[in-house]
Amino acid sequence: MAEYQVIVIGGGPGGYVAALRCAQLGLATACIDQRRGRGDKPSWGGTCLNVGCIPSKALLDSSERFHEAGQLGEHGIKVGGVGLDLKQMHKRKDEVVAALTGGIAQLLTANKITALTGTAKLLADRKVEFKEKPRSKAKILQAEHVILAPGSVPVELQDMPFDHKRVVDSTDALAFPRVPKRLGIIGAGVIGLELGSVWNRLGSEVVLLEAMDEFLAGADPQIAREAAKQFKSQGLDIRLGAKVERIQSLRGGLVAMHYTQGGKAAQVRVDRVVVAVGRRPATEAVFSPESGVRTDARGFIQVDAECRTDAAGVWAVGDAVRGPMLAHKASEEGVAVAERIAGQAPQVHFDTIPWVIYTAPEIAWVGATEPQLKEQGIAYRAGSFPFAANPRARAVGEMQGFAKLLACANTDRILGAHLIGPQASELIGELVLGMEFAASAEDVARTVHAHPTLSETLHEAALAVDGRALHRANRGG
Amino acid sequence: MAEYQVIVIGGGPGGYVAALRCAQLGLATACIDQRRGRGDKPSWGGTCLNVGCIPSKALLDSSERFHEAGQLGEHGIKVGGVGLDLKQMHKRKDEVVAALTGGIAQLLTANKITALTGTAKLLADRKVEFKEKPRSKAKILQAEHVILAPGSVPVELQDMPFDHKRVVDSTDALAFPRVPKRLGIIGAGVIGLELGSVWNRLGSEVVLLEAMDEFLAGADPQIAREAAKQFKSQGLDIRLGAKVERIQSLRGGLVAMHYTQGGKAAQVRVDRVVVAVGRRPATEAVFSPESGVRTDARGFIQVDAECRTDAAGVWAVGDAVRGPMLAHKASEEGVAVAERIAGQAPQVHFDTIPWVIYTAPEIAWVGATEPQLKEQGIAYRAGSFPFAANPRARAVGEMQGFAKLLACANTDRILGAHLIGPQASELIGELVLGMEFAASAEDVARTVHAHPTLSETLHEAALAVDGRALHRANRGG
Repeated sequence: MAEYQVIVIGGGPGGYVAALRCAQLGLATACIDQRRGRGDKPSWGGTCLNVGCIPSKALLDSSERFHEAGQLGEHGIKVGGVGLDLKQMHKRKDEVVAALTGGIAQLLTANKITALTGTAKLLADRKVEFKEKPRSKAKILQAEHVILAPGSVPVELQDMPFDHKRVVDSTDALAFPRVPKRLGIIGAGVIGLELGSVWNRLGSEVVLLEAMDEFLAGADPQIAREAAKQFKSQGLDIRLGAKVERIQSLRGGLVAMHYTQGGKAAQVRVDRVVVAVGRRPATEAVFSPESGVRTDARGFIQVDAECRTDAAGVWAVGDAVRGPMLAHKASEEGVAVAERIAGQAPQVHFDTIPWVIYTAPEIAWVGATEPQLKEQGIAYRAGSFPFAANPRARAVGEMQGFAKLLACANTDRILGAHLIGPQASELIGELVLGMEFAASAEDVARTVHAHPTLSETLHEAALAVDGRALHRANRGG
Repeated sequence: MAEYQVIVIGGGPGGYVAALRCAQLGLATACIDQRRGRGDKPSWGGTCLNVGCIPSKALLDSSERFHEAGQLGEHGIKVGGVGLDLKQMHKRKDEVVAALTGGIAQLLTANKITALTGTAKLLADRKVEFKEKPRSKAKILQAEHVILAPGSVPVELQDMPFDHKRVVDSTDALAFPRVPKRLGIIGAGVIGLELGSVWNRLGSEVVLLEAMDEFLAGADPQIAREAAKQFKSQGLDIRLGAKVERIQSLRGGLVAMHYTQGGKAAQVRVDRVVVAVGRRPATEAVFSPESGVRTDARGFIQVDAECRTDAAGVWAVGDAVRGPMLAHKASEEGVAVAERIAGQAPQVHFDTIPWVIYTAPEIAWVGATEPQLKEQGIAYRAGSFPFAANPRARAVGEMQGFAKLLACANTDRILGAHLIGPQASELIGELVLGMEFAASAEDVARTVHAHPTLSETLHEAALAVDGRALHRANRGG
């Protein structure tokens, strides 16, 4: 008999959440993760919690406060000089991370999950080879089910390896000991924009080189245009169609990024370069060939719609499988797999997974963009409303951006919601739930929204779908 | 033939929104409001916009920033001394109000509404007597339909009239030229708490005398308890069961509030007293006896469920009729009446109107409280989750409060949602929409919430209804 009903390999938001749900369902569960933090102590939570979402949000919040501290005069608040104590800012960030990783360790214990720190490799027949330290003696654990949740790691550019000093990854960029005078970022996606925002606010000149000609290609183009405008006004120098050819170390610690743009060679000299061109599944050493688990052409663990790998009793979730690399997608897959193992029939709706970019203004969306609807030949109506016309946005002085809803022209069903503006990350929740209920734009329009709130912008955008926003002169309709 | 299909009396969120919707529906509409601002110019938007929600939110935001400016050290932000320029803070508030009132004037024009500034009185047969100034010659306007939206005014205490210097109303308290050293507030309801929060943050010692023994009687008791704890820790001195008997002017500009508490006489000396014991419908002079409009025993204009008064073709909405005195309730009634006049069949769901208190932390709720469910004999399950366990709340350092959902024990349908915590005013929107769809707690639990967001607290509270919150050890379940 197996020692464990379930062994979860990976302690990030896909893995540890799967383990928690397994335990709730009465399954004897182990969760294995190799990450150690200060004092060599286990540090649960994976990339997200240790070197991703959470530390970046802590720095985004602190750096935003730093930026705002210089702009309080308008509010009648006089402050003396504003200075930065970066060490303390990092300390706060580290404390936030430590509190949360420690919380997960407690949750695992409280749920009677066997929490193991070390490396794990899936062998044949759901046997797992566990090693506490690289030189420890391997221990073989047997499970009825194995959930692989190994996550992802930053992609390294060919011929431009990370030296973690001048050429760094996102993890390094969350811990710069000094504010770089000039910071180069390769890749103007979510990670590049969030990190660029942090250091720009703290005083860096930031240049982002994006290989694609289109900015934020995954977002709705109207949102992307507004974002580009806002970021430019904040001083982010975003160069599109800029393909980096070579990174050259110069004297004085400088680095030259050589790139081509529109066929022309160019270069920009910076103090540090963050490579933020994407992440790849971290599947090396997680399973052996005998395990029966296979990867697809792009290196992702091959799974079906319900996260089953090619090996019986072996599941995989999160960044290492198809679908968006988002913590909440990983968690929901983890929950669903746990429930499937327990004989339930859960569903994860990929169409209603929200996306968020934590810049200022924030960007959030769910569902289809306009180009996607056009491509699918779906007739739709769009309704948008600017935060500038929202009373609360004005009261709190955060008036950039807008909300846009896309609804089926025939049924009025909401097919996509796209926000750029204050608290977009929180406001999107209403529309995600709405889409789960197949809400029409009129449903949102007929729902009372508290006044004065930013959420009234959603209400007005829903009204605008029918050409009848209240607080804006409507064209036609 | 009538000159106007609709005359709206009142230019607040009930009246002007009704007028906008009438105009959208093609009705020839006039809107009359008597409020004038600086330079005797019309100032649209009623109490809410001029002396209510909006200026209070502007001051709440500025005062919160003032408070936070003194606490930036934790974030690694060093500021010299923090000083207050109250005149500038008021100036910004006035600019916010001016921009929004001006915006409404533009909207009325853009929608081809006849916007009249002066007093209006409904006579018989939907005739309206209009006077531009008190001594102007009256003009009689004829309408097919009249919508009364006169709003409300602060209640004055018997024998303690407002002198607008020492004994003031909420309007005065939004414009104190100096920060009172000691501020007394009679009434610890929404208005008292919001104003108390503003001046407390700016340096006043604030004492609130509340006649009722129960704090925030309309809110869920668990929320009220948490709120009382938070406000106390902020320095608000809230005295319950404190019945004010008399206000006495003392030398040196002081005022003594004499009150009894638990049968004992007591007094507290302050510099100014804000009377915030409630608001009453402002129905004087809005209609003549011949109009056929009647008021109920409490002075509210008598209307049916669809806002029809006792006079044919005359409707009334907002604070002057039954139901909560909330701007968004007034607006929705105004929209619905406009649509009824145009022959449509709209509905306003009073069960899904959200309530918000803009303190820090914010308080927001929709639907039934626990005592209400108990009184109705409805079996329910409660699920709650603390913001302290929410990663984003921790990343931004706003960890007070919790979310609580109440769901029917038999059907799991959400019957009430109660929030105290960061952005509660915005988060409640998801649950209002959910309740409009008769969502179950499981529906919210099965909906993907973006990570890391405060809205995950709602997700966890929904899971907790079934005893299976992920990030908290569950009892039983």
